[in-house]
Amino acid sequence: MNHGKKRIAVLGSTGSIGQQTLEVVRALPDRFQVVGLAAGKNTALLARQIKEFKPEFVCYQEQKTQAHLTDNEYELLSLEELASHTRVDTVVIATAGKAGLSPTLAAIRAGKDVALANKESLVAAGEIITREAKLNSARILPVDSEHSAIWQCLRGETQPASQLILTASGGPFHQCSLAQLNEVTVEQALKHPSWQMGSKVTIDSATLMNKGLEIIEAHWLFDIPIDNISVLIHPQSIIHSMVEFIDGSVKAQLSCPDMRLPIQYALSYPERLANPQLPRIDWSNIKALKFESPDFDIFPCLKLAIAAGRKAGTYPAVLCAADELAVELFLSRRIKFTDIARLVEQVLDKHKAIANPTLEEIIAADDWAREKVSQLNTGG
Amino acid sequence: MNHGKKRIAVLGSTGSIGQQTLEVVRALPDRFQVVGLAAGKNTALLARQIKEFKPEFVCYQEQKTQAHLTDNEYELLSLEELASHTRVDTVVIATAGKAGLSPTLAAIRAGKDVALANKESLVAAGEIITREAKLNSARILPVDSEHSAIWQCLRGETQPASQLILTASGGPFHQCSLAQLNEVTVEQALKHPSWQMGSKVTIDSATLMNKGLEIIEAHWLFDIPIDNISVLIHPQSIIHSMVEFIDGSVKAQLSCPDMRLPIQYALSYPERLANPQLPRIDWSNIKALKFESPDFDIFPCLKLAIAAGRKAGTYPAVLCAADELAVELFLSRRIKFTDIARLVEQVLDKHKAIANPTLEEIIAADDWAREKVSQLNTGG
Repeated sequence: MNHGKKRIAVLGSTGSIGQQTLEVVRALPDRFQVVGLAAGKNTALLARQIKEFKPEFVCYQEQKTQAHLTDNEYELLSLEELASHTRVDTVVIATAGKAGLSPTLAAIRAGKDVALANKESLVAAGEIITREAKLNSARILPVDSEHSAIWQCLRGETQPASQLILTASGGPFHQCSLAQLNEVTVEQALKHPSWQMGSKVTIDSATLMNKGLEIIEAHWLFDIPIDNISVLIHPQSIIHSMVEFIDGSVKAQLSCPDMRLPIQYALSYPERLANPQLPRIDWSNIKALKFESPDFDIFPCLKLAIAAGRKAGTYPAVLCAADELAVELFLSRRIKFTDIARLVEQVLDKHKAIANPTLEEIIAADDWAREKVSQLNTGG
Repeated sequence: MNHGKKRIAVLGSTGSIGQQTLEVVRALPDRFQVVGLAAGKNTALLARQIKEFKPEFVCYQEQKTQAHLTDNEYELLSLEELASHTRVDTVVIATAGKAGLSPTLAAIRAGKDVALANKESLVAAGEIITREAKLNSARILPVDSEHSAIWQCLRGETQPASQLILTASGGPFHQCSLAQLNEVTVEQALKHPSWQMGSKVTIDSATLMNKGLEIIEAHWLFDIPIDNISVLIHPQSIIHSMVEFIDGSVKAQLSCPDMRLPIQYALSYPERLANPQLPRIDWSNIKALKFESPDFDIFPCLKLAIAAGRKAGTYPAVLCAADELAVELFLSRRIKFTDIARLVEQVLDKHKAIANPTLEEIIAADDWAREKVSQLNTGG
């Protein structure tokens, strides 16, 4: 019997957030049950996860050619069917990039609790997602450590924040010059100093585009103007973000940098659960928490994201899509690290934006941006 | 008409906390109204406060000899009458030491909101005060910056904290040796690096007795075992305290060191109010927040307080009273700085404690402790 267990579907179960979500479930088997798993191409790992967690539902990209991955009994569903299934309480959206948008909306329209690790869908379609969530009484529970921190700091507060202060590790290059950034290799960019993450978000952390996307994400999640959200470099990643209130009081949330904590908080909310696997801060080892102001000239992606967030409409969707493709080009060694910002900026400059776009217009803007990056990169 | 204004009585209005409470009221005249003022010997300042705030009720030590301090119309009341008057919504207990206990209990028994800056009454009689508050639906709203921080961090949380981390500036001597402490002058001890406070609490901050008393205070305010409360030296006094939850997540409250914020928060709770006079943290000026572990051998008062808190009964009352008198002796240059801890320890050692004491037994223990300090100091 599983009475009282939260039934979880993990979309993107073989990625970094997906695997850590399963670690949380593994540590707290009396509280959570995996009823659905969805993954992309890593079918070997997915097969192992199916054996261990015995989900009722599975979704994978190659499902048409392979009827079943393992001997376990399960039903094959599409991402959207899984995200909206009545057997599911909480949907963890841990797929990266554009692929998260459609199942996120399906889960929201089914009134689910949506533990959202995919920031691109909120950035591109924040207005639609938050409106649909309200209409359908679905809760969007942030999984990003920064947004989880803000959410925890806002807990119990009855008035809006006056300012959100997003902390940023600054990535591996936060003390580099522009000239040094020009020569950055893929290997250097993938070496994040404090967080273990997927490659897309690791590169976004190195360009600070990740922090820019998080500003737009925070804007939608917490209904606060872009201009009331600031960024503070904090290389140790212990303070995960802060909230300033109208009386000048500031609340911060801190922990060792470990994504399992914000994942677990989103799954267990409003309860907090003891999990012996989660590390605790050892204050005798912390002599100082350090801060720097971000350098917008060295990290133009941050500036681009803030500008796109302010202009709104289809700009954030174009920002997201152009960045996603530019990062792919960098990872496949076809452009330089500094070309990521250059390409994104060129695409944003050429974009003819639509205000208050429909979902179709957002998807069209996304397609257009990807096309444009390809053209620009091949000199088209 | 004063509909909607909170009616405040300030007990100890001429002291540091009292004056800062009146600054908050002065800054927010649409929200707060001073209906009562009580002070000790500083009748000149009290007279000016009466002229400015026009309270309905006044209480002062010398009232029997002087019928009225000013031409304003007001009624003379005792501390207890003022603290429990039906015209009063919130009672600010800003009197130092033993004098706070009786009006605190009067306010609680009248079911008031009690903004409590007097830590000695909670330390000495925490069990009685918290029990009476529950019985009479009175709220105890902490004014100490550390307890206000913890209270803010616990806001909206539905489960108990797993650990409270009280930050301490460490006072002026946090990097001194025992030999150096032996030679400390009154002037050096009164120079606090980050806070402007009354002389008793400033000396208690220099010995770290203040932090020890705050541990016992936090124990009663937040119903958490003494052993789950730790102390972290943070000389900048920007993080005012932290709370660790069972999942390992930590919340901290930060602000510029300015007592008007916790005072205002206690007065306005559950609302937060914009007050242009309250400073805001300028993150571009903060390169690091620094921490040290406290040295229990250099600051034995901290150890004494924790031990007294653990043993409970009348021990905390004896700790408080012995410390109060020892600090007076130091301020009047009759004992050395390091004698404060020595005297308190000797008195605690000689004390025959009573478990679950009545108010009378607490007052008797207090009297005994003062007598004992005098005897010990005069070689009796």
